[in-house]
Amino acid sequence: MRIITTVAKMQEQALLWRQEGRVIGFVPTMGYLHEGHTSLLNTARRECDKVVLSIFVNPTQFGPNEDFSVYPRNACRDIRIAKTAGVDAVFFPTEKEMYPRGYATYVYVKELEKKLCGQTRPIHFQGVATIVTKLFQITQPHYAYFGQKDAQQAILLRRMVDDLNIPLIMRVMPIVREADGLAMSSRNAYLSVDERKQALVLSSALKFFQEQVKKGETSVQKLRKQMEDVIATAPAARIDYIAFVDTKTLEPFEEIKEGTLVALAVYIGKTRLIDNWMI
Amino acid sequence: MRIITTVAKMQEQALLWRQEGRVIGFVPTMGYLHEGHTSLLNTARRECDKVVLSIFVNPTQFGPNEDFSVYPRNACRDIRIAKTAGVDAVFFPTEKEMYPRGYATYVYVKELEKKLCGQTRPIHFQGVATIVTKLFQITQPHYAYFGQKDAQQAILLRRMVDDLNIPLIMRVMPIVREADGLAMSSRNAYLSVDERKQALVLSSALKFFQEQVKKGETSVQKLRKQMEDVIATAPAARIDYIAFVDTKTLEPFEEIKEGTLVALAVYIGKTRLIDNWMI
Repeated sequence: MRIITTVAKMQEQALLWRQEGRVIGFVPTMGYLHEGHTSLLNTARRECDKVVLSIFVNPTQFGPNEDFSVYPRNACRDIRIAKTAGVDAVFFPTEKEMYPRGYATYVYVKELEKKLCGQTRPIHFQGVATIVTKLFQITQPHYAYFGQKDAQQAILLRRMVDDLNIPLIMRVMPIVREADGLAMSSRNAYLSVDERKQALVLSSALKFFQEQVKKGETSVQKLRKQMEDVIATAPAARIDYIAFVDTKTLEPFEEIKEGTLVALAVYIGKTRLIDNWMI
Repeated sequence: MRIITTVAKMQEQALLWRQEGRVIGFVPTMGYLHEGHTSLLNTARRECDKVVLSIFVNPTQFGPNEDFSVYPRNACRDIRIAKTAGVDAVFFPTEKEMYPRGYATYVYVKELEKKLCGQTRPIHFQGVATIVTKLFQITQPHYAYFGQKDAQQAILLRRMVDDLNIPLIMRVMPIVREADGLAMSSRNAYLSVDERKQALVLSSALKFFQEQVKKGETSVQKLRKQMEDVIATAPAARIDYIAFVDTKTLEPFEEIKEGTLVALAVYIGKTRLIDNWMI
């Protein structure tokens, strides 16, 4: 497994693989890998000739009061996990390599970037769109793998890839959960033992939602109230949003139908967690 | 020579050439080709295995009161010129092919996009950056050819290509001029016979500037005044800007030095023309 830290070397390797006719699979991450990430790596390993993992905590997708500086990092452990997963190259650049002095170019996806998480994180998705465009140019993937946990990110990046005509296929893989239902996230590391228990309200609210919909409930107003009640059982929980939206446009629905995305963001203490369910 | 109208077919052809190890040269244009364009095509023909020309009058780079609808078009003539120049593929998409319903992604280059022409044309360079990013993904060039006449465009796109890590080399070729000095431009077609004569003040002002600098003049204030006087000899001329700036940052200089770009935009009647000179 190669560990590559410069853009030039990573791009050279990727373009060489392309010219040799190898199919490249790419898993972009901010590191601190969990089983959600390894499920992406395993799928990439099955579907592609060469697998590239990137580890880069991208400063441009964090707001000024967000957790960039404390975001969990453990490169040694990540590299061990990558090796075990059969990764061919880890791209692990510095901040200066990705955003050199005078850096000025940004990519954004109108409307989509302003919805859901974009309300509380106004520059987040511009940062994501920009770094992912860069990483796609550097790693030249045929397939790129993302987790369904970041539902808005996946929807926005699909739109971006289509719009900018980037020649790759987006693969969005199911959420991987802990045994008790909590969606895997590097940010779960922030939770105290007590908060970890309370964090279950996100997946519980979604489970309750599914049951109600199975029973025939379609009113967003009622379902929202019920989910709020579930979340209110955790004293450390503060709802950022619960959204019932179209899976392409993120426009809100009044009635539940096929193709509704239910997404929620909830603070557990100071930690902001997200989860979602697609009908 | 292939004439290709869909993104999918153009991209398929380009990726195939890449895999065969062919070096692709790309000349993006809005059509209505003149000798400036053919000089780009000729250079591309010399330097590359395959030459792709795109013809697309890009709506997103025109402001609401600009000349999008009347911009000169002549596809048949353009295609004849392309054939003569030894082009391998002409990419000639429709507006709907490039900006389908729901299109939402834009690329912009902070600061640079707001300077010089960006002052009167606030959305212009976002439109340029976006369409060029798309065209680069579609035609997969190793070399991309641009004219020095659009100096700010070339500077901004160089920055963008570097920033987004797009794996290609930008080639910016000298301005091609009519026998009397007028810089070639598709927009020259707008000029009446009388305006055509008056349009000479742009290149005359630049020639005068060069002579004064050769004589040792370095004061931007004096040079600007002198150039304004030259341009004032044409009654139909109205100056948009005369700028003396750094060739990378477009920051203004007070004194002329090596690496100064002198750029000007002047309305001749209703036609806005640009020209420039780099020391």
